[in-house]
Amino acid sequence: MSSSPVCPCSLHKGAVGFRVAAISATKWHQQFCCFFSSVPCKPSPISLSNSVSISRFFPENRLPWGHTGRSLPINENQCNAISFENPCSFQVGEKFQLEDVIEAQQFDRSILSAIFEVAREMENIEKNSPRSQILKGYLMATLFYEPSTRTRLSFESAMKHLGGEVLTTENAREFSSAAKGETLEDTIRTIEGYSDIIVMRHFESGAARRAAATASIPVINAGDGPGQHPTQDDIKDYLMSKGIEWEESDDLMEVASKCDVVYQTRIQRERFGERIDLYEEAQGKYIVDRDVLRIMQKHAVVMHPLPRLDEITVDVDADPRAAYFRQAKNGLYIRMALLKLLLVGW
Amino acid sequence: MSSSPVCPCSLHKGAVGFRVAAISATKWHQQFCCFFSSVPCKPSPISLSNSVSISRFFPENRLPWGHTGRSLPINENQCNAISFENPCSFQVGEKFQLEDVIEAQQFDRSILSAIFEVAREMENIEKNSPRSQILKGYLMATLFYEPSTRTRLSFESAMKHLGGEVLTTENAREFSSAAKGETLEDTIRTIEGYSDIIVMRHFESGAARRAAATASIPVINAGDGPGQHPTQDDIKDYLMSKGIEWEESDDLMEVASKCDVVYQTRIQRERFGERIDLYEEAQGKYIVDRDVLRIMQKHAVVMHPLPRLDEITVDVDADPRAAYFRQAKNGLYIRMALLKLLLVGW
Amino acid sequence: MSSSPVCPCSLHKGAVGFRVAAISATKWHQQFCCFFSSVPCKPSPISLSNSVSISRFFPENRLPWGHTGRSLPINENQCNAISFENPCSFQVGEKFQLEDVIEAQQFDRSILSAIFEVAREMENIEKNSPRSQILKGYLMATLFYEPSTRTRLSFESAMKHLGGEVLTTENAREFSSAAKGETLEDTIRTIEGYSDIIVMRHFESGAARRAAATASIPVINAGDGPGQHPTQDDIKDYLMSKGIEWEESDDLMEVASKCDVVYQTRIQRERFGERIDLYEEAQGKYIVDRDVLRIMQKHAVVMHPLPRLDEITVDVDADPRAAYFRQAKNGLYIRMALLKLLLVGW
Repeated sequence: MSSSPVCPCSLHKGAVGFRVAAISATKWHQQFCCFFSSVPCKPSPISLSNSVSISRFFPENRLPWGHTGRSLPINENQCNAISFENPCSFQVGEKFQLEDVIEAQQFDRSILSAIFEVAREMENIEKNSPRSQILKGYLMATLFYEPSTRTRLSFESAMKHLGGEVLTTENAREFSSAAKGETLEDTIRTIEGYSDIIVMRHFESGAARRAAATASIPVINAGDGPGQHPTQDDIKDYLMSKGIEWEESDDLMEVASKCDVVYQTRIQRERFGERIDLYEEAQGKYIVDRDVLRIMQKHAVVMHPLPRLDEITVDVDADPRAAYFRQAKNGLYIRMALLKLLLVGW
Repeated sequence: MSSSPVCPCSLHKGAVGFRVAAISATKWHQQFCCFFSSVPCKPSPISLSNSVSISRFFPENRLPWGHTGRSLPINENQCNAISFENPCSFQVGEKFQLEDVIEAQQFDRSILSAIFEVAREMENIEKNSPRSQILKGYLMATLFYEPSTRTRLSFESAMKHLGGEVLTTENAREFSSAAKGETLEDTIRTIEGYSDIIVMRHFESGAARRAAATASIPVINAGDGPGQHPTQDDIKDYLMSKGIEWEESDDLMEVASKCDVVYQTRIQRERFGERIDLYEEAQGKYIVDRDVLRIMQKHAVVMHPLPRLDEITVDVDADPRAAYFRQAKNGLYIRMALLKLLLVGW
Repeated sequence: MSSSPVCPCSLHKGAVGFRVAAISATKWHQQFCCFFSSVPCKPSPISLSNSVSISRFFPENRLPWGHTGRSLPINENQCNAISFENPCSFQVGEKFQLEDVIEAQQFDRSILSAIFEVAREMENIEKNSPRSQILKGYLMATLFYEPSTRTRLSFESAMKHLGGEVLTTENAREFSSAAKGETLEDTIRTIEGYSDIIVMRHFESGAARRAAATASIPVINAGDGPGQHPTQDDIKDYLMSKGIEWEESDDLMEVASKCDVVYQTRIQRERFGERIDLYEEAQGKYIVDRDVLRIMQKHAVVMHPLPRLDEITVDVDADPRAAYFRQAKNGLYIRMALLKLLLVGW
């Protein structure tokens, strides 16, 4: 630890190097802010994805989705300081570098740093009254092909906090139903005529990219099927390709005592199919409770993309290291920042 | 009757004492304004609920939900004047006494009187152009775990009439589905990060109270299961505990000739289960039609929480004593008043 | 062709007389703008409907819905110029002639011309920033008894582009469900208390007219069952009653080479019932592809109400004569114009 350049994320004031234990893969768009703090420390900018993690737990070497896991001993993972001496290298009013937000890999560290600066401004806007009208007159369409109320409300809240307006649909499948059979491209060509930016959730991998290729207005990917939900084998390859060290372990207590971030997630029942016995076994395996808290470092945090079931016990909530509700709130600021950047620039 | 302090409710100008015939229990949030005028006259402030009624009808002593009813002779119920000499004892800008609106029992007469004053201002706002922007920059989340379009639209209209904005969800069950299993408390902690006030409808009794206990922002109960839909036995006990006289009768014509308010409601088919015969019998038993109007007093009103089926005939609608559509509109003003009071105070 | 008075529709600059080939009946509210250009040329104003078409194709004389078709030889259909020397004969601020918009027959040519002038202003408003606030403080309720996301979003976009606000319901059937049994009239009386204008889609023919008769605020018909979706026999009778010549043909190529507008539509599978074989035969019969484009006149356009399936091939999209996405966008401007006219006048 040092006092040199610190994480701009309000969760980690003063922290400069991170060891992250991510218990399973989760959706990037719900964790955007958090991954900033899970950047493994490398001198040059690297691409980020939700698969950037240091340690990963699986119940007794048996991966629920049929792969064979290996338990590796936990090593110290010494990180350099994350440095972003000049995070805001972009002029106010300058055009945003990205036309669409489709995947985490689009961002390098300098853009991320600058986005977090904007997110911090957004936090001030949200907390003050009267609220900003930066996006007054702008219309966002939330084109959700499958419902995701939490994600949708977060984007809509972000837009409305900036004075913008929203067109909502949660049953967009109707556009492309078997009965009607319209292509995604045709739908996008219609919706772009009604709005200034599209936030899309789709059930098919690659749909967001197709929408962005068609639309003349910005598209934000709020999830498209298994896309941006990479499997463990993807993650390992990706980390190795970037020269990032990682390990697997099945000893939560040992890892928790060393990590800066314990990133817990819901065990997704739907992945176990008929094997309800395996699900139940996995479910109880790694629970973050007061015992885990007790051995965690003082500055460390517990994160979770929500919703949670039993994998974090409720009595953890009151601990200042329980960061998951702050995390959801920070997601709002990031969404406000992205909408602002895509529509009116830096 | 006297000319002394009058009901501030626009329905009852000049009326000072009321005999109310409520034909069955209904939802409090749809009748807020109306119950003001159904307050049995007592010198000291009393708590109000939708169960405050004077007379109640059941088909030939047989209660559809299996209880045994008794027919009682109708007595005159002499009321004192409702007095609220100084209804507006609250300073403009002063904080509202309530943090949440969960049940009718939270209100005493002085608060109710003052709320009705604010509702009257809201009526002016709604009728004038350009409309008020009192709540500009505020965000209301309508978190409905079961759909209730009428109630939702009324709240959303109230918010938007005051310049506020709305996040809508009618499928909030998704948040807490068996598959995902999130607790109400966790959902509230997320939604409170996106909005300034939550209007919630839930299928479980007590859910609104739990939400209010969790949230750091105001919660308005727009119905939570059988909560605030008390059964007849509750009502009797409650009235007796407050020392309020009441009677039951099966003679609609006699009661209608004496009452100030005939509060009709829909007979809820879903309560009869398989006994469709009992439902059909009950359905035709007490119909407010032109014959009933003929014997009603000139100043009396017919109220109904809507939707109505056949229990009030359509030819009653044109009579000035048919108050049910005015009642729905007044519900809008009350909701505007409550939103204003909870968000910015008196 | 002449240089005299031209179509104000941006699709047809300079075009003065039209021969239209409409391949099947479609919904008027999606085609509003387009029908302007499909007005058969008559010296005196005529009423318009979506059934105004010149040529109509059916697969080999067999009409899918069981009627007997006849193939007629194609004749030249010489039109006079559409003349609207003084389209804007209405004073700014003057009250709009119509209280509701229920059917295309309400419009005569002079009103249509003036509406198109307003639509052109709306196009400027939509393209400029900051956007207009003409309808600030006004509330539109979209009361949809059956979902139609595209239509709903278009109306909501129109309202919000003018600074107005929206109350949305896509499950309005709940209002009038068998269980609750409320009449449309009662629903309208409640909703008109919450909003300033109602856009309604209903599953029953005539519902829009009933709603308009009840409401004291404007009602716009966004489709009511088979209403405004006239059958072919209706169309023929209507055209004959107006003295308009028409023909039927099954030779797409010949017609396409002569027409100014090829109005293609989706073949509605739901009309074929069990006869999937007939559907598939009909489906492939008349496809607008690059071969059709090749023989079409240079100034002609291909229109479609969307969504499209295979009846126009995707490689047609890039041709400047492919007007269907412009058509959807123009629908937005028309809706903006109608909302402005109904709420604040000319």
